[in-house]
Amino acid sequence: MFDNKDRTDISELGEFGLIKYLTEAIVLVQPSTIQGIGDDAAVLDFSAKKTLISTDLLLEGIHFDLRYVPLKHLGYKAVQVNLSDIYAMNGIASQITFSIGLSSKFPLEAVEEIYEGALIACKKYNVDLVGGDTSASTQGLVISVTSLGVADHDQIVYRSGAKEGDLLCVSGDLGGAYVGLQLLEREKQIFLENPNIQPDLEGKDYIVERQLKPESRKDIIELFETYGIRPNAMIDVSDGLASEILHICQASQVGCRLYEEKIPIDPMTYETARTFGLDPTVCALSGGEDYELLFTIPQDQYDKVKNQLDISVIGYITDKASGCDMISKSGHLHRITAQGWNAFRTSE
Amino acid sequence: MFDNKDRTDISELGEFGLIKYLTEAIVLVQPSTIQGIGDDAAVLDFSAKKTLISTDLLLEGIHFDLRYVPLKHLGYKAVQVNLSDIYAMNGIASQITFSIGLSSKFPLEAVEEIYEGALIACKKYNVDLVGGDTSASTQGLVISVTSLGVADHDQIVYRSGAKEGDLLCVSGDLGGAYVGLQLLEREKQIFLENPNIQPDLEGKDYIVERQLKPESRKDIIELFETYGIRPNAMIDVSDGLASEILHICQASQVGCRLYEEKIPIDPMTYETARTFGLDPTVCALSGGEDYELLFTIPQDQYDKVKNQLDISVIGYITDKASGCDMISKSGHLHRITAQGWNAFRTSE
Repeated sequence: MFDNKDRTDISELGEFGLIKYLTEAIVLVQPSTIQGIGDDAAVLDFSAKKTLISTDLLLEGIHFDLRYVPLKHLGYKAVQVNLSDIYAMNGIASQITFSIGLSSKFPLEAVEEIYEGALIACKKYNVDLVGGDTSASTQGLVISVTSLGVADHDQIVYRSGAKEGDLLCVSGDLGGAYVGLQLLEREKQIFLENPNIQPDLEGKDYIVERQLKPESRKDIIELFETYGIRPNAMIDVSDGLASEILHICQASQVGCRLYEEKIPIDPMTYETARTFGLDPTVCALSGGEDYELLFTIPQDQYDKVKNQLDISVIGYITDKASGCDMISKSGHLHRITAQGWNAFRTSE
Repeated sequence: MFDNKDRTDISELGEFGLIKYLTEAIVLVQPSTIQGIGDDAAVLDFSAKKTLISTDLLLEGIHFDLRYVPLKHLGYKAVQVNLSDIYAMNGIASQITFSIGLSSKFPLEAVEEIYEGALIACKKYNVDLVGGDTSASTQGLVISVTSLGVADHDQIVYRSGAKEGDLLCVSGDLGGAYVGLQLLEREKQIFLENPNIQPDLEGKDYIVERQLKPESRKDIIELFETYGIRPNAMIDVSDGLASEILHICQASQVGCRLYEEKIPIDPMTYETARTFGLDPTVCALSGGEDYELLFTIPQDQYDKVKNQLDISVIGYITDKASGCDMISKSGHLHRITAQGWNAFRTSE
């Protein structure tokens, strides 16, 4: 990551020096950005479009473990996680603010890596970094990201729009980020017991990347536009499929039938889950951090999605009284319950 | 603050339960807020106006000490500090997101107090709380606020617009928040040495409030509109007068003359600084956290400000080559240097 000999103490620069140093690399690309970093506030012009805003807090020891999360990946992921919320409204992300609190044990080079990761994500997704705050922290690393995006009023998709008879769809595949985390946790334990053993992540790139370097699904929003697909309801999968399905059903006052066999799970996720003694379906339902898009579409749009390799139809929406159930591979009905991640549960 | 017998463990509610509980009291008042909390992102409509955005991170042990900062005040101050940046652009704040990370040692009632303070600030300033994030924290309390505001394009005031000959003005009075902090720190020390001694803040309400419960100066922005005052440059005083003057002069490529005798200092600030052996002028120059507005206006607008009780003309803008100097009460020239607060200096 960085050599200790290259350490530059942040206090040498001070807050203003640090901001200046870090922000020199920022290139603004959005026509809606009038003024970026450098004043009390950034100035934006969304004209006739509606503005979307979402914010996330990422805390060391809760959301990430620096013993196996490279700093550049962390900066990248912090941005992706937040952009994902804008795409989940069927909007296009345009700006972020990126704040960071870090203890003085971090050298400048460490902060630089975090920002570098954030800026790589911004560049790839055509998003401007227009503001932020930097501060010392007495303990752990703190990252706070706020994203702004735009959408035409009639294109915005809420969680609450699902209708009886809609098809329930999801992008990509699920469970990979959670199984990747199990893999990293196992290697961390092995390393802690014997620091001479190198981590064995050979051939597991895909699921490790799903955990360390997730991609928000801007491409799916663009695909919707290309094919004229208009979801009735949408949410991003951050806490696990089960939790997100329940959010849509509760907000829309509907029920659903989910087919276990239709849940898209990558073979590597499946096999690795098995080696950990985990049920791959449970990993998809309750694992979280996949940042895929879960959405419902009217049945008459089925032809538009059926040949999309990256979209799976996994069930359908029912009336509220029918409840939210999964039909298992063996044909049994199971009530869907949220076992998503609870940051306040002390055992976690 | 709250009785221990009334403690409710946050983990009983979980994150979603906590959000639901905390956000029930939110009333949206801004016509620009289309959708507040409850989806992946909030939806806003700024129509033809420009959007302003600013963000702040407040960390326990760095920005506040819970041994003397009441939680409700903390929530209130966190919002004010951030709104201040929007007003410093000559804009009107309209929405905030409010994120909080806190250790499981905090009961629900503690979070409630922080949010209550934030919502009181929102209500008073006509701002909608439209989003946020809540998380456990392994150590200290973390608060992150992002503010949005609006302004007509030609009304936005940047730091960079100061012109030679402009009058340098400041709202309210300075140094109070810093001297208030000294008072609170002293009482904390006395309390730590002997917990039976009650804090002696008698008659010091004003400066204690300046520290614990600052008010951002929306009223000054409204006063500008009423009297047709249009600053050329503006910034809010968060790091001390000296640092802010230098920001304006650097961004505008100008110099300035500041008159020490014109710096507005409240008598209580003055006297209390003296009892601490502090120079009141230094408290105003380097103390910070006053959240007043520092701005420059063309000389021909002098008549509009001269009778405003809450605005002081403290100097004027010169050419860049003349540098940034203060003329002391004894008539000597002193170069202005930034000794503002550096969150990365480990001695602080």
